[in-house]
Amino acid sequence: MQNFDYQTPTRLIFGKGVVEKLPEVMGQFGKKILLTYGGGSIKKIGLYDKVKELLKDFEIYELSDIQPNPKYDPSVLDGVKICKENNIDVILAVGGGSVLDCSKAIATGAKYDGDPWDLISYKAFATDSIPIVDIITLAATGSEYDSGGVISRTETNDKIGYIDPHNFPLVSFLDPTYTFTVSKKQTAAGCADAMNHIMEQYFCEDSTILNDGFMEAGLKSLMVNAKKCLENPEDYTARAEMMLTCTYGCNGIYSLGNSQTGWPLHGMEHALSAYYDITHGEGLAIITPRWMEHVLSEKTVDRFVKYGVNVFGIDANQDKFEIAKKAIQATYDFFVSVGIPMNLKAVGIDESRIDEMAHHVAVNEGLDKAWAPLTEKDIADIFRASL
Amino acid sequence: MQNFDYQTPTRLIFGKGVVEKLPEVMGQFGKKILLTYGGGSIKKIGLYDKVKELLKDFEIYELSDIQPNPKYDPSVLDGVKICKENNIDVILAVGGGSVLDCSKAIATGAKYDGDPWDLISYKAFATDSIPIVDIITLAATGSEYDSGGVISRTETNDKIGYIDPHNFPLVSFLDPTYTFTVSKKQTAAGCADAMNHIMEQYFCEDSTILNDGFMEAGLKSLMVNAKKCLENPEDYTARAEMMLTCTYGCNGIYSLGNSQTGWPLHGMEHALSAYYDITHGEGLAIITPRWMEHVLSEKTVDRFVKYGVNVFGIDANQDKFEIAKKAIQATYDFFVSVGIPMNLKAVGIDESRIDEMAHHVAVNEGLDKAWAPLTEKDIADIFRASL
Repeated sequence: MQNFDYQTPTRLIFGKGVVEKLPEVMGQFGKKILLTYGGGSIKKIGLYDKVKELLKDFEIYELSDIQPNPKYDPSVLDGVKICKENNIDVILAVGGGSVLDCSKAIATGAKYDGDPWDLISYKAFATDSIPIVDIITLAATGSEYDSGGVISRTETNDKIGYIDPHNFPLVSFLDPTYTFTVSKKQTAAGCADAMNHIMEQYFCEDSTILNDGFMEAGLKSLMVNAKKCLENPEDYTARAEMMLTCTYGCNGIYSLGNSQTGWPLHGMEHALSAYYDITHGEGLAIITPRWMEHVLSEKTVDRFVKYGVNVFGIDANQDKFEIAKKAIQATYDFFVSVGIPMNLKAVGIDESRIDEMAHHVAVNEGLDKAWAPLTEKDIADIFRASL
Repeated sequence: MQNFDYQTPTRLIFGKGVVEKLPEVMGQFGKKILLTYGGGSIKKIGLYDKVKELLKDFEIYELSDIQPNPKYDPSVLDGVKICKENNIDVILAVGGGSVLDCSKAIATGAKYDGDPWDLISYKAFATDSIPIVDIITLAATGSEYDSGGVISRTETNDKIGYIDPHNFPLVSFLDPTYTFTVSKKQTAAGCADAMNHIMEQYFCEDSTILNDGFMEAGLKSLMVNAKKCLENPEDYTARAEMMLTCTYGCNGIYSLGNSQTGWPLHGMEHALSAYYDITHGEGLAIITPRWMEHVLSEKTVDRFVKYGVNVFGIDANQDKFEIAKKAIQATYDFFVSVGIPMNLKAVGIDESRIDEMAHHVAVNEGLDKAWAPLTEKDIADIFRASL
């Protein structure tokens, strides 16, 4: 077991109707709120009006149109400008992980004198930030319970995971009913994203009975409940279980004390969605079984056996490589069963930039130090196998 | 799934050698430290000298001799007096859960003008407290990661679980090597305590795939690793896994969104150790299988089946009551196998005060509203079956 230093100060307020506590919570942080959101789905479900009504005694500024794979320019830069010009007290992010990730970069950027990209690219470190509260409307990223954010910069094809303790939301409101209207496509992609967060921690050298059981339960919860959500989008219990399972995804709680893995799937997928702006969870799902096949070896097989037996219930009395291959096939089959297009061409990616993306990943993501180390050629091979 | 409001702000610094960070951490909170500890085991293992050396630039006051089942008088009262007289900035609790529980009551008591018992008995609520840091030397209570403390008042046979958000330690140092010298008796009792923390959350009406898997893994981790610790007290990995599994015990993370259970085993055991000052974990272990037998019914059996199949690997293809009874026997057998004396007489408790204790529990613990409701007669029957 490895040494670790862990803290997640975020308060989780979870369940149907909890948003009623919003005025009391926001009141702790001040009067001037920057409300951030995306393309307007929060208006369709009535949440925008609800929030405005609840916060009628506050002074509200707005930043809308934050895109999936949120952009440094214009979203982060616009948000920083609004905060600086208006002395914003607190940011309220309402939406999915992209809205929240963008808000995290705004929160630290607004308290920094230089170019906010310095912080995202670790040229400088935040010393202060604006408090963040969020209302999450999509079960997926876990951004509501972690200190990370992913920001894309279109002109350089950068998509950077930016981690800083100032990024923790102080309060996250999680009402599963706000995910009832999430489309089948986004429900499946969110499930795939959250499954990958767990897999990125599960496939490692050194784990524990506790962490393995926790993560295997997380994977089973996501698969069982995603199917229920697709069958009946208003299944409260299924939406609620998915939401909490996703929330734990990226703050480390699933794997405290485990050895590092390098998060190879995210390292590779960030190039795909930076170059092609595809849905992150779909990109992850597509490359996952191809990565598994590629790294399966005498050295890694036991971990895949454990995964196959404990997550998919594959009979343990078989050759270990047989079990591993069945586990990889079951992973692929699950993603197909929830409707994810399982090859890159189906999401608009062809052969043309594969070598360029593989080079970008090899240079920037350090996957030569991953649990199963990947060279530039390995990465290109995995991308090609995913075509 | 139930609504919940959850937050655990504590920073966990975990692993071999982490105590070296103590000066940096304590420096955040001030110069005047109240060092609290128990009967001197921290001196035997060299930790007392180590702490004094690391904190040579601080002004240190001491409260020693804090007993297991820590006492309001003298320990809490003495600690409050030292803090008030010397304007203590921060409390450093070094030892097991009892030392930390006592320190929590001191931390709030020192910032309260009235009798600190008002806070413990909820006649008043804390509005401020002295920051608490701890170095834990026993894997058991989980006090290092929760907002609860248990305080005993000898003259009234009260043993009260006192919960308040001010009780969260700000930083918990967890170095498994400091548990190498824990005796076989205390290792087994700590394991039983932590298993019970999980069982008190597991046996409920409404749980999730995620929580069930997490808790089942926790129970398995404790049983496997306790045996390893008994065989080789310096097995670092086993001590480390036990320590982290225990740490999650009481802050709610094992069962967020689950229905309430009433924590019947703790409700009953607190009377046993209040009246007889026995080792808490042993008291819990003794009554656990008797409670299970007593509450086993058509209404509760499915939960015991799940427990038996998933924790003990009992063959699922049997009559459900057969599985449940095997699970209860397996629980009893495990406690025997780690050397816990499995009846009350063996720890010095006879028939004489059973009705009095049962009455005390029935009046004070609300177990008529537990998952499997218990009347005063039920409680007395469980105590008698445990003799």
